[in-house]
Amino acid sequence: MHKGRLEAFSDGVLAIIITIMVLEIKVPHGADFAALKPLLPVVLSYVLSFIYVGIYWNNHHHMLSSTKSVSGGILWANLHLLFWLSLVPVVTGWMGENHFAPATLAGYGFVLLMAAVAFSLLQARIVAHDGPGSVLAHAIGRDWKGKVSPLLYGAGIAASFWQPWVAGAIYVAVALMWLVPDSRIERTLGQKEAG
Amino acid sequence: MHKGRLEAFSDGVLAIIITIMVLEIKVPHGADFAALKPLLPVVLSYVLSFIYVGIYWNNHHHMLSSTKSVSGGILWANLHLLFWLSLVPVVTGWMGENHFAPATLAGYGFVLLMAAVAFSLLQARIVAHDGPGSVLAHAIGRDWKGKVSPLLYGAGIAASFWQPWVAGAIYVAVALMWLVPDSRIERTLGQKEAG
Amino acid sequence: MHKGRLEAFSDGVLAIIITIMVLEIKVPHGADFAALKPLLPVVLSYVLSFIYVGIYWNNHHHMLSSTKSVSGGILWANLHLLFWLSLVPVVTGWMGENHFAPATLAGYGFVLLMAAVAFSLLQARIVAHDGPGSVLAHAIGRDWKGKVSPLLYGAGIAASFWQPWVAGAIYVAVALMWLVPDSRIERTLGQKEAG
Amino acid sequence: MHKGRLEAFSDGVLAIIITIMVLEIKVPHGADFAALKPLLPVVLSYVLSFIYVGIYWNNHHHMLSSTKSVSGGILWANLHLLFWLSLVPVVTGWMGENHFAPATLAGYGFVLLMAAVAFSLLQARIVAHDGPGSVLAHAIGRDWKGKVSPLLYGAGIAASFWQPWVAGAIYVAVALMWLVPDSRIERTLGQKEAG
Repeated sequence: MHKGRLEAFSDGVLAIIITIMVLEIKVPHGADFAALKPLLPVVLSYVLSFIYVGIYWNNHHHMLSSTKSVSGGILWANLHLLFWLSLVPVVTGWMGENHFAPATLAGYGFVLLMAAVAFSLLQARIVAHDGPGSVLAHAIGRDWKGKVSPLLYGAGIAASFWQPWVAGAIYVAVALMWLVPDSRIERTLGQKEAG
Repeated sequence: MHKGRLEAFSDGVLAIIITIMVLEIKVPHGADFAALKPLLPVVLSYVLSFIYVGIYWNNHHHMLSSTKSVSGGILWANLHLLFWLSLVPVVTGWMGENHFAPATLAGYGFVLLMAAVAFSLLQARIVAHDGPGSVLAHAIGRDWKGKVSPLLYGAGIAASFWQPWVAGAIYVAVALMWLVPDSRIERTLGQKEAG
Repeated sequence: MHKGRLEAFSDGVLAIIITIMVLEIKVPHGADFAALKPLLPVVLSYVLSFIYVGIYWNNHHHMLSSTKSVSGGILWANLHLLFWLSLVPVVTGWMGENHFAPATLAGYGFVLLMAAVAFSLLQARIVAHDGPGSVLAHAIGRDWKGKVSPLLYGAGIAASFWQPWVAGAIYVAVALMWLVPDSRIERTLGQKEAG
Repeated sequence: MHKGRLEAFSDGVLAIIITIMVLEIKVPHGADFAALKPLLPVVLSYVLSFIYVGIYWNNHHHMLSSTKSVSGGILWANLHLLFWLSLVPVVTGWMGENHFAPATLAGYGFVLLMAAVAFSLLQARIVAHDGPGSVLAHAIGRDWKGKVSPLLYGAGIAASFWQPWVAGAIYVAVALMWLVPDSRIERTLGQKEAG
């Protein structure tokens, strides 16, 4: 099976997820800047989630760029990832409207954790499909970011009920960690072409 | 006519259907986990419908992968399928908000039934267009899943007013039946290439 | 300029338009079939608009299939068409919620009229770009459907305030007229290949 | 990295942004034309924002048409642009519902300003990636429109609190300035092919 429609469908779903989150930013009813103030936590959580979905789109793009065909198992592993990402707008809105209350921070971390697990499962499926000598298998290498992220999300969930701001700080830190360009696949692809 | 835009448009509509269902999961107003409890039936019906739309996307993908061109009749048979699938978010929300009440279970089954009929009509159109010796005609073979599903949906609709949980169990069972990888087309395609 | 992104963007917008209309079908609050009854006019107007957007997608698909490149003017003529089509969900909801009241029928007809005019303008732009000997110029020929539709929409708008059901009947009739497969371009393309 | 998915994702997000704005046009509850009157400012701001998103889609299309590959930095510069454009529906709704009140006009101008800055950053990234001899570098030349727009948005923000109608006039004028076909890249591409 060709990967074209898998990419197109995932692009569609991710584009919708990243955009419908903005529907949670309810148009303020007042006509002055004071009316914007209650929106601040909603906008902050929107920015964080926008970056997270952007990271997933980026990594998804990288992961599939070195693959050619896909199996039925990969299609479902991909839908599983999209399922957890589709819940991001819900927990984003919940967290924003409740000013980062402990339970909402834990809920946000839980959805991030499940999405990270789903991404790892999808990656493992693709590596199994492409074989251990594939570009992707080389590129992910030890995959320390992928291994450390779930641990950090777990720490964030635990911290939510102890010191909520620590949970928030962890989620921001993980996002920043991923924002640093993930040059692994680009580098390996470059070496292949060079070699 | 080339099939490219038919796939792109269907991917777009299916991506939107699968994602706007999440808008039915209203952001809870409380800030603790107790606020999530009333969401449980809504989330459960979301999961079931997400799987169903995923199955349709998967099968749609398979069905068209062995086809090259499309006719005007195929375009409309495809829109007919998308129409019934576009009602899935409505009946999903209705069923979830009313805790799987009998009429809502029957309504959900009715939309599934009509989508299954629409899928069969589309498949028949494509087989007629490609000819009896085509890959798709070979691949679907006796198509027992496609023939049994409408009967099961019908049984589910009838059971809704008798034992609602039976209806729910049937809808889950049909989804599981389809989740088992539909290897028919992959196998036939493989044989063609091998032969 | 290549036409690829014009098609992709139009497919995206049309897919969203055809799908967000379903958000107007508010999930009924009752749990029995009686709760569905007030939805009837909303569902009926949804069906009609779904068919209309489907027709536009079909005709858009046909019109561009015989074109290769696009100009800046074509991009804007296309956005102009998408603008009027984006108002279809608004007038559909207005008409459905108000049980086909005269003003809502006239408003619905007005948006259909403007979309038809926008489609003609886009078609003229493409013919001017491709030249009078192009496949599209041949295919549309006398374009009687395209010329008669605006007149019928105008008649529908006028009839709204006299006999509302006549307006509704006209809108249904125009949709049926277009549903009859528009074989012009397919035929011309076939002749080209055959010749 | 190939630019295909960057374009597909951007097309998806822009298609959704341009279409969900229409959700702000709440279906009027009355059944006569008088019920449409309060919608006038909402519709006017919708038209303006539709044109602005159309301009961004057009310019995005042009900018990428002369590029082949993209870097990780370009992906993020593109997401940054999409972020600000995703706020256009929010400020459009705010401005429309409050009849162009001063603070809402300033907010609208602020989002336009940030989108313009993000577009310039993206353009600079692509030029840096393609090199100073690239088609895009030639094509944008002195880029007076890109340089003048932020100044005009700034003037509009300032004017919002002094003479609101001046701010509105400036935003309309900038849109008209861009609507005039941006023939720079088309011309340069034409010369390249001709030369």
